[in-house]
Amino acid sequence: MDKILRINMSAKGGPALKEESNAKYPGMGGRALTTAIIAGEVHPMANPLGEENKLVIAPGLLSGSAAAMSGRISIGCKSPLTGGIKEANSGGQAAQVMARLGYAAIVLEGRAPEGELYKVVINKDGVKIDKAPEYKMLPNYDLIEKVKATHGDKVACISIGPAGEMKLGAASIACTDMEFRPTRHAGRGGVGAVMGSKGVKIIILDDAGLENRKPADPEKFREANKVFVEGLRTHAVTGSALPAYGTNVLVNLINEAGGFPTNNFKEGRFAGASSISGETIADIETKRGANPTHGCHRGCVIRCSGTYHDKNGKFLSKQPEYETVWAHGANCGIDDPDKIAMLDFLDDNYGLDTIDMGAAIAVAMDAGLAKFGDGDAAINLIKEVGKGTPLGRIIGSGAATTAKVFGVERAPVVKGQAMPAYDPRAIQGIGVTYATSTQGADHTAGYCITANVLKVGGFVDPLKSEGQVELSRNLQIATAAIDSTGMCLFIAFAILDQPETFQALIDMLNAFYGLSMTADDVAALGKQILTMERDFNKKAGFTALDDRLPRYFYTEKLPPHNALFTVTDEELDSVYNW
Amino acid sequence: MDKILRINMSAKGGPALKEESNAKYPGMGGRALTTAIIAGEVHPMANPLGEENKLVIAPGLLSGSAAAMSGRISIGCKSPLTGGIKEANSGGQAAQVMARLGYAAIVLEGRAPEGELYKVVINKDGVKIDKAPEYKMLPNYDLIEKVKATHGDKVACISIGPAGEMKLGAASIACTDMEFRPTRHAGRGGVGAVMGSKGVKIIILDDAGLENRKPADPEKFREANKVFVEGLRTHAVTGSALPAYGTNVLVNLINEAGGFPTNNFKEGRFAGASSISGETIADIETKRGANPTHGCHRGCVIRCSGTYHDKNGKFLSKQPEYETVWAHGANCGIDDPDKIAMLDFLDDNYGLDTIDMGAAIAVAMDAGLAKFGDGDAAINLIKEVGKGTPLGRIIGSGAATTAKVFGVERAPVVKGQAMPAYDPRAIQGIGVTYATSTQGADHTAGYCITANVLKVGGFVDPLKSEGQVELSRNLQIATAAIDSTGMCLFIAFAILDQPETFQALIDMLNAFYGLSMTADDVAALGKQILTMERDFNKKAGFTALDDRLPRYFYTEKLPPHNALFTVTDEELDSVYNW
Repeated sequence: MDKILRINMSAKGGPALKEESNAKYPGMGGRALTTAIIAGEVHPMANPLGEENKLVIAPGLLSGSAAAMSGRISIGCKSPLTGGIKEANSGGQAAQVMARLGYAAIVLEGRAPEGELYKVVINKDGVKIDKAPEYKMLPNYDLIEKVKATHGDKVACISIGPAGEMKLGAASIACTDMEFRPTRHAGRGGVGAVMGSKGVKIIILDDAGLENRKPADPEKFREANKVFVEGLRTHAVTGSALPAYGTNVLVNLINEAGGFPTNNFKEGRFAGASSISGETIADIETKRGANPTHGCHRGCVIRCSGTYHDKNGKFLSKQPEYETVWAHGANCGIDDPDKIAMLDFLDDNYGLDTIDMGAAIAVAMDAGLAKFGDGDAAINLIKEVGKGTPLGRIIGSGAATTAKVFGVERAPVVKGQAMPAYDPRAIQGIGVTYATSTQGADHTAGYCITANVLKVGGFVDPLKSEGQVELSRNLQIATAAIDSTGMCLFIAFAILDQPETFQALIDMLNAFYGLSMTADDVAALGKQILTMERDFNKKAGFTALDDRLPRYFYTEKLPPHNALFTVTDEELDSVYNW
Repeated sequence: MDKILRINMSAKGGPALKEESNAKYPGMGGRALTTAIIAGEVHPMANPLGEENKLVIAPGLLSGSAAAMSGRISIGCKSPLTGGIKEANSGGQAAQVMARLGYAAIVLEGRAPEGELYKVVINKDGVKIDKAPEYKMLPNYDLIEKVKATHGDKVACISIGPAGEMKLGAASIACTDMEFRPTRHAGRGGVGAVMGSKGVKIIILDDAGLENRKPADPEKFREANKVFVEGLRTHAVTGSALPAYGTNVLVNLINEAGGFPTNNFKEGRFAGASSISGETIADIETKRGANPTHGCHRGCVIRCSGTYHDKNGKFLSKQPEYETVWAHGANCGIDDPDKIAMLDFLDDNYGLDTIDMGAAIAVAMDAGLAKFGDGDAAINLIKEVGKGTPLGRIIGSGAATTAKVFGVERAPVVKGQAMPAYDPRAIQGIGVTYATSTQGADHTAGYCITANVLKVGGFVDPLKSEGQVELSRNLQIATAAIDSTGMCLFIAFAILDQPETFQALIDMLNAFYGLSMTADDVAALGKQILTMERDFNKKAGFTALDDRLPRYFYTEKLPPHNALFTVTDEELDSVYNW
């Protein structure tokens, strides 16, 4: 995994390939690498859909090895949604396969002539790039079905749906899972629109004939991996809750905490929560012959994903994630799991971020386009996106644009990106992350739900401002580092509570690369990444005032706690003081 | 004119009125006053459509007096289009009538409950505010027709059309002209959306029984006014060109200069220019029995406005302004004056900024929604706005949002507001104003066309960067001051070239208020206004990086000069150094 593949889509006579060494980026994978390349090579004032932007796809440092949980792939660019730097990551098979093919990064540069669409095929014999007009405007499931006919189902794909081709602000990039379904997405910030603007529909990765990447010290590596897996299996969250119910185990917990945003962030508890909880959905899945406990990539031992069948026992979608169940459920007042699963399927199929879609539909409901609770209306709105109608394009541009076009004041966004499934008035720590993350409102950037609600890694009272900045800061630093390893972020539950599991992760990295990193080195990497990102955003015009929640979180009280967001501006501005 | 009327639309039991003295704002009228109130009272991070924003309407210092040209009214708020402070001003009768009623400003505060719509009637007996459901979604012409039936045609009205009620980003506020037509607009920055968000449809101003405001020194005032008028009559622009052809006299001049943006800013010359020139349009007007030389308010001696009739000799619209002829003409590739006049009428009727509309339609044409040159398609797009369809709402949100929703890179906007009718690559001075104005891209904020093209107030080579910053700086300062006097900005042509005409303006102000201001004091006022505005914008999150043109003006050459915008960032950042 020591090569960087650059594809210049603007080159005369068609896309030009260039391979170079990754020696310029020692110790960098995943988010560290996407951020370093974007920050180093993209003009911060570039138009995100223009020739100057780049799309960088990078597996993590341990991807493609035998390390458990190492299936995350990072995708970076200047975001058309936030206008700042973006790293969105995804599970699925792509990271492992790409890493085994030897690529530390694929960089899409320039832009194909208007109307041209390409596919990239990479296998052990090399890279091929061809026009693919036959894929034009295909939804992801149909696209993958077509690819199966020509490439079989053992390859891994990175693709965009119609939303990406339309260059919509909420367009995602799909990665296929173990069953060759396009269910895992680098969802946030419109990364799919950037891939669409380059004119690349799909990257097909084939590792046939290739083996796992080999550690420098196989023995130490095997031992560390064993301790690491054991740690994940014994922690309550990664060993029990997530496997049993998936991420959706959170519905009851966050609803109970009063931080489950309902009807476009007007309340913190949803009357229909029990109908859409992880427990209920797992039960439905089991009864209908679907699988509630499943891994999204080979080597996953947490297995928080699953499948969801319709009433006739036919595959409808993957098991919807908690964020999706919230976005299309409580936030739209919808309590029917079948409708939510259908919305999840449509989002995956068109290539859309479920969080910004749920937020946009709720804003549209506030504008009177549909009634809160009307699942069929929500489904129709998403179908509009797929059709590319003007209404669909509005919704597909995300919650911020939807609010702008329909004159709605209550737009729950930071830096143009919709807030996820936790109200920052009831869970103040996550508000600090929403406000200050380089990525716009993003729960994964510093998941304070840990100490605020789950009592993982300590406890910080969610309704008070005290301690939230430190909590968010430490998590943002740790997350940036984890996002560079290829590790699924859910390992954080275990490594926050179990020092030996954290040490095992470091041991794995050291054994793999022949290094002697310490925990301090990991933190230093996290800080380095955040500094690069923040510096890029500053040069793109961001100031401290972009590190704020929308005004109404400071002025409109959220039931049932009747809480406001009380972390001061000064506190927010201290997050990056380390 | 020493009262400020505040109307709190949020008050329990219906709108609450409050009158106070304007003593807190000595020597401030028009833009100085709107800016001082907004900067002093509106939270810079407020949502522009929320309860915290205010809409301030203020006639100029000399409005309502016998001073020639003193019919401008300023409307200020935090802009939903730019996110910064906004002053948009308009001609028509409103300034004079409001000033005679004694109001230095009307401040709309709070927000009426969803769905409620109000009218405000002000006459010598006081202020009345009533629900006006009968006006709901009425276009401006229909609205004014209805008002005529109840209030006669001697009143002056300030109103919004459906675009304002829909809270669209390009919604304007209309002021009636001398013939009681809603033809004069505070067009830019979405001021109409803010009025709509407050729930106020119309302000009806009736000065029956009231006289002109009296100067402190009538004799000196009369004398100064005489010299002033004489100066306007003898200058080539204000005395000949504008009366004969209106602002549209610029078509041939700017086209010749290669700075007439064509087909969404792709070229600097339009093949169809002669079909839409001021000369051609005045000729059509004369032949069809319309009036090419007309004043938009009583006391106007330049008389650059006019009327435009259709082929059957029936009133179609006011004489379209140069910016409109450009926006709906060359920028959309349309060379049919009848179509342009129809677009002008529709914009006025729905209450839309013609500049952002023309720019948005050209962006939509780039997205493939219509062909450049197709006037009927453009008319249909504007009709969509009137109908409030999703497509119409996109277009009505302005060029920046249209580009975002349709994934178009070439969006000619600064701070979210569309550029007017001069390409900054061929006329570099206006580019400095576009980039650095507190208002977003705005030609009136510092009209460098004077020295760059018209050779008024000297000559600065339009294709070179030298001297442009100083030119723009001085004009921005002077403009902010003029915008506070109630004077039409077109007096600038004469006062830039003729020191005695400038002195006459100062003499009028001094005679009216019993002051002894000098030219330096006028400049100091301009600087004070700009400083307040810039400070507000800074607190709203603007940085030097917002004072830039879109990247493609630096990288894509504009024919026929094949010019790029070459003023450096450092130069732009020096505009406010005085």
